[in-house]
Amino acid sequence: MLRVLGIDPGIAIVGFGFIDKIGSKLVPVQYGSIQTEAHTPQETRLLQVYDSACALMDKYKPDTVAVEKLFFNKNVTTAFSVGQARGVIILAAAQRGLPVTEYTPLQVKQGVVGYGKAEKRQVQEMVRMLLKLSAVPKPDDVADALAVAICHAHSSVLTQKINEVNRP
Amino acid sequence: MLRVLGIDPGIAIVGFGFIDKIGSKLVPVQYGSIQTEAHTPQETRLLQVYDSACALMDKYKPDTVAVEKLFFNKNVTTAFSVGQARGVIILAAAQRGLPVTEYTPLQVKQGVVGYGKAEKRQVQEMVRMLLKLSAVPKPDDVADALAVAICHAHSSVLTQKINEVNRP
Repeated sequence: MLRVLGIDPGIAIVGFGFIDKIGSKLVPVQYGSIQTEAHTPQETRLLQVYDSACALMDKYKPDTVAVEKLFFNKNVTTAFSVGQARGVIILAAAQRGLPVTEYTPLQVKQGVVGYGKAEKRQVQEMVRMLLKLSAVPKPDDVADALAVAICHAHSSVLTQKINEVNRP
Repeated sequence: MLRVLGIDPGIAIVGFGFIDKIGSKLVPVQYGSIQTEAHTPQETRLLQVYDSACALMDKYKPDTVAVEKLFFNKNVTTAFSVGQARGVIILAAAQRGLPVTEYTPLQVKQGVVGYGKAEKRQVQEMVRMLLKLSAVPKPDDVADALAVAICHAHSSVLTQKINEVNRP
């Protein structure tokens, strides 16, 4: 059994999803979002994100953390804000000795749908099917976090298979 | 007396500078840099930056923290990395209840030299003079951190004066 925590970082909304990989099965454990209020000082928001991330990691005890690596062309200020939120989440993982792996949106699409140019709703639908959910989790950040977790679970299988093949 | 911690954030080098504002005098307390090794996982580097920032704040007990707000046109990946480092430093401040103020490079130049288009070496020389140092601290990140601290100390005086004028 491998418990993966997938994270879609942001400053207003952090999507999270814990899934268990049991054999070839994927089982959703808990998922949702950490939301912080606009018009509160950024230090308060970062503290809230950090405290919530710590509480979730301590409650659901993941084996590993997978984070979406964002490349977006919006303004650099947004990149700083998202980077700050990512920073405190990665810190929470590092303090617990959890490995952190980053995946680009392309890798997530390939890992979930098997096709790097998949559309967002295809990825979301695949998340729903693979985790046997009745509906796509909302907001999008939650579905995105689960997608990163699935991507990691799938690539762990791959890494394991490669290791087995390469074993002398 | 007001003790200001100025920070120039980065992932490889974080410049820091503690200064005391005693009346109209500025006194350097401690300054230097937190450096992390390339080729170590980013989670380890963030943990090192966070732990060092916590240790420095606990040892030198600043009243307030001033951080340079960076806008740069380099790639967005760099903005993410610097943002992550900033995030864990701001978190350390928030956990200690310390107010965090951000200053743009323009504000720092205006606050230190009194001229927003000042060159980097003019700012550094002014830092050296105001703090009565024998030489400009190296690397540049340290001088930049002290410049942000000075900028905050100067603007605190201004804020205080405005408050006095506005007092009924």
